[in-house]
Amino acid sequence: MGAIGIVGGVGPSAGTDLASKVFRHTKAVKDQDHIDLYLTSCPSIIPDRTGFLLEGGDDPAPGISTCLKKLASCGATVAGIGCNTAHSPQILRNVEIPEGMTFLNMIEETCREAATLHEGTHRTKIGLLGTLGTIRTGIYKQYFDNYKDLELVVPPGDICEAVHDCIYNKKYGIKALSSVSKKVDGIIRGAVDWLADRGCRAVILGCTELPLVFEGETTFHGAILCDPTDILAKALVRATAPEKLI
Amino acid sequence: MGAIGIVGGVGPSAGTDLASKVFRHTKAVKDQDHIDLYLTSCPSIIPDRTGFLLEGGDDPAPGISTCLKKLASCGATVAGIGCNTAHSPQILRNVEIPEGMTFLNMIEETCREAATLHEGTHRTKIGLLGTLGTIRTGIYKQYFDNYKDLELVVPPGDICEAVHDCIYNKKYGIKALSSVSKKVDGIIRGAVDWLADRGCRAVILGCTELPLVFEGETTFHGAILCDPTDILAKALVRATAPEKLI
Repeated sequence: MGAIGIVGGVGPSAGTDLASKVFRHTKAVKDQDHIDLYLTSCPSIIPDRTGFLLEGGDDPAPGISTCLKKLASCGATVAGIGCNTAHSPQILRNVEIPEGMTFLNMIEETCREAATLHEGTHRTKIGLLGTLGTIRTGIYKQYFDNYKDLELVVPPGDICEAVHDCIYNKKYGIKALSSVSKKVDGIIRGAVDWLADRGCRAVILGCTELPLVFEGETTFHGAILCDPTDILAKALVRATAPEKLI
Repeated sequence: MGAIGIVGGVGPSAGTDLASKVFRHTKAVKDQDHIDLYLTSCPSIIPDRTGFLLEGGDDPAPGISTCLKKLASCGATVAGIGCNTAHSPQILRNVEIPEGMTFLNMIEETCREAATLHEGTHRTKIGLLGTLGTIRTGIYKQYFDNYKDLELVVPPGDICEAVHDCIYNKKYGIKALSSVSKKVDGIIRGAVDWLADRGCRAVILGCTELPLVFEGETTFHGAILCDPTDILAKALVRATAPEKLI
């Protein structure tokens, strides 16, 4: 049996969150039933993804490549990275996947899962929230273009900026506080509301910080909440030991 | 600056729990402020610790040594293992620490912290709960013997067996359910009660599953709750980047 590799540190909690979700999706009654897993959490070599995409910051691709290499040398055969923004083509195209390692693309896995929600003859609307890096570089759009039955809906600029601020604000942002303030909770729920009102069947919480707002909830105002980290966790288990997938 | 290594997989959630506590004890307003960290979660090569100590099972030491080697080759300079039972002398004496790596002993760190609770002229009573492996092999006792101001209090056999069962029972145990049932909650709180009634100033929750019962609580019935994983997390940050310790 192979082993799972996780490029974490982007941010640190997103890495452990992905690992925890792998454990949760594994059939196990004792420690030894779990799949071997390795995690690198190296923020010192992976600069901010949004900073690179929108503000001319350093490229995170070399650091991600280094982490994948370390994971492969530990023994990881299937790997993923629990950061939406890191999947932008501008970053991912420069990431080197070690020989013999399968890299699972979180955005591709999420789109595949979203496609299973399609019913009827009209296109199914799927909403998207994320950082401005994720939204403006069209990370999700490029994969959605392959699914003609789906329509990706992104809120207007002011809502997107408010959502981005909820993640990055140095005073009340989720990254700074490592928790969700009442203010952030209200803004994010308002953004999901906006998408649900426009007929979105599901909303992709396209930044690893956003699912923290909806801990334990699977829908909000009728819209299904899609957590890409959870979807990637399932895909990692499926690719490594399909018989163990819950 | 060095990097932190965590031997996880014992059990899997204990590893990510230790990593999360490292992040929580690090002064950081952005991802890049965090310390680099590597985690191995390899239950396939680390047999059950209690099974080895009490039932003649395979020795977990070689697997732990392999994990430390992998962590060192990734770049970890300071390492720890978030499993109380793995610190029994019968296991730890056969673990090889790679050259140049500092291994922090969670039990030693916990005893040092417990010693800071001593006041007055009488010995300060500190209670202990854990697996039967941890209790019967005297893992904590050997370190407490160095602190003449402290007295380690262990509940009687039937309470210890009930606590062990709360961790390991295949139907309602925390390892099997990955959560705390009402039954388990009642038994563990009852055991802390017993220790508090005997005058324990603090109770060591000496198995990584036990702090899950008291999420967000710092005391119970007047006894301070000591989480060795949390104490180890602080020690790992202090040893790697003391200026970042919260």
